[in-house]
Amino acid sequence: MNARRNHQIVLARRPTGAVSEACFESTVRDVPELGEGEALLQVRYLGIDPTIRGWLDERGNYMPGVAIGECVRSNGVGVVVETNNPDEYPLGRVFMHLTGWQEYCVLQPNPYPPITMLPEGVALTDVLGVLGHIGITAYVGVLEVARPEPGQTFLVSAAASGVGSIAGQIAKMQGARVFGIAGTAAKCAWVVDELGFDACIDYKTEDVAARLRELAPEGVDIFFDNVGGRLLDTVLRRIAVHARVVLCGDISTYDVDTPPRPLHNIRYVMGKRARMEGFNTLDHWDHYHEAAAQLAEWRAQGKLKFREHVLEGLDRAPEALVRLFTGDHLGKLVVRVSGPGADPEARTD
Amino acid sequence: MNARRNHQIVLARRPTGAVSEACFESTVRDVPELGEGEALLQVRYLGIDPTIRGWLDERGNYMPGVAIGECVRSNGVGVVVETNNPDEYPLGRVFMHLTGWQEYCVLQPNPYPPITMLPEGVALTDVLGVLGHIGITAYVGVLEVARPEPGQTFLVSAAASGVGSIAGQIAKMQGARVFGIAGTAAKCAWVVDELGFDACIDYKTEDVAARLRELAPEGVDIFFDNVGGRLLDTVLRRIAVHARVVLCGDISTYDVDTPPRPLHNIRYVMGKRARMEGFNTLDHWDHYHEAAAQLAEWRAQGKLKFREHVLEGLDRAPEALVRLFTGDHLGKLVVRVSGPGADPEARTD
Repeated sequence: MNARRNHQIVLARRPTGAVSEACFESTVRDVPELGEGEALLQVRYLGIDPTIRGWLDERGNYMPGVAIGECVRSNGVGVVVETNNPDEYPLGRVFMHLTGWQEYCVLQPNPYPPITMLPEGVALTDVLGVLGHIGITAYVGVLEVARPEPGQTFLVSAAASGVGSIAGQIAKMQGARVFGIAGTAAKCAWVVDELGFDACIDYKTEDVAARLRELAPEGVDIFFDNVGGRLLDTVLRRIAVHARVVLCGDISTYDVDTPPRPLHNIRYVMGKRARMEGFNTLDHWDHYHEAAAQLAEWRAQGKLKFREHVLEGLDRAPEALVRLFTGDHLGKLVVRVSGPGADPEARTD
Repeated sequence: MNARRNHQIVLARRPTGAVSEACFESTVRDVPELGEGEALLQVRYLGIDPTIRGWLDERGNYMPGVAIGECVRSNGVGVVVETNNPDEYPLGRVFMHLTGWQEYCVLQPNPYPPITMLPEGVALTDVLGVLGHIGITAYVGVLEVARPEPGQTFLVSAAASGVGSIAGQIAKMQGARVFGIAGTAAKCAWVVDELGFDACIDYKTEDVAARLRELAPEGVDIFFDNVGGRLLDTVLRRIAVHARVVLCGDISTYDVDTPPRPLHNIRYVMGKRARMEGFNTLDHWDHYHEAAAQLAEWRAQGKLKFREHVLEGLDRAPEALVRLFTGDHLGKLVVRVSGPGADPEARTD
């Protein structure tokens, strides 16, 4: 028996409708003795991603659902604090992994897919965000799927989200006119003033259709959609001939048990000879290294801004997931589990 | 004043809901004296295409709507019977043109887009069908947009229609496993027995979803959709990863005034990382010559079967349009206006 005790957040009951903190329970379990080739990772930060919501349903989402009583599956970064495998998992080195919502996580030898050891000195929250799955999703979605050309109109929903904010900045670097849609005046101000978007529509207080007519009278060439539902329908009426609609996410439909709202304006895809395309970053493994290197370079050059919203303490992971869907956050939601305090520039609460 | 009199079918009232013969009236007008450079075309056959339905609405469909009292716009072929322009329009030669539902049509000099003079000896109904817009739409849709690969599952709706039947035959030549969906047992039998489709589902008597599970347990790689609406929704649940859904037509939504039925299963496009794409043959002018030549070659080699359903007499054009939407026909609907009788192999009534 390992002397350490492992604080976990487990799934207590499946959400029906909106996810709530009542779906989760906190528990303490023993850390098992390490087997041959294994190592123990102390979790530093958890990334709170929409995918987690899908895993709370029995059917799961690309991976099976989390069982009742099981530790909630989640991306995270941590530091090796014990090791039976110093070649693969050296003491003190940082790894990104599906750590789950817990303090400690056992690393198996030769896992598939491989667990990446991170370069020393990289910001841990960057790894969960701009340099991680989120940044790579935005990179692949913009440069491999959407492919904006200089002067084209590029619209992104959930513009202040992790993927949305990076996608808009990458499209801007390609010379596109970039417009966002977000849910608060503060988010809109941030993407325009800080990230350099050309404009941003507050969908909660503005008439999205009217603003689109004004901003893009010739229609939207590319819609990079992270939201789905009613907003997608509204934008479809404003797409340009040969538009591309990239279905990156549909967070508006994740959190409801009722069937998703049907789409009324699919006829515009035919009428405008447009292309609507779903993608998953997992299909673009061959671009991972290129994407990560380019994102790191842009980040180092100060060309790519990214904001974390840090919640302090493992017990706040359920609250973080709820806030992901209520929109009550600005930037990539992460939970600090252990280790030194967050980057002083990050917003914490 | 020209001595000839011109029998026309004009739009008497706009359809509300399903198009009916009551929307049209027959009239006789004078044929105008030919001006400089003009010629008079005696219409032989009219092609009855779904596009006509869009032109009956005030807003039109790629072209403005037909005015009340105006001759109904329609594709047709005819023979030059008078000419002031023997170089451009030699007497006795055959031309394809938007002739309208009438006996005579005046050809202007140097029209744009140009009016094509047809090679002598070509079957006039072929020109309106397999070698015309329909054949080219199928060619472009399959080879430029859908791009089936050998062994892939290619599903086409309205399989016994002009575009559907040619699309399926072209996909079959590419080595795909070709399945159709059609609305009568006779249509299903025709595409399987005569055209070589691997199977065909009768959507009026069979459970489409269940049959698709059986025919394509791994999912549908390509759906070439001419119907839209509920059928599109049903098929979306059965698409394979990286499927392509080509939106070629949505005849199910043409003929109703109520808003089209919304699409419930768009989430499968994202989940399956699929691509849904509208196209219009007009965007592929650069492939017209290649397409027409290839189609004519296949036709001459007996590799491409095509069936016309001929209605005799201009006055039956409204009936033909109604039958296009009720599905009470087998093959490309054409109306014989004048000239020698139809190809004895064609079905006439």
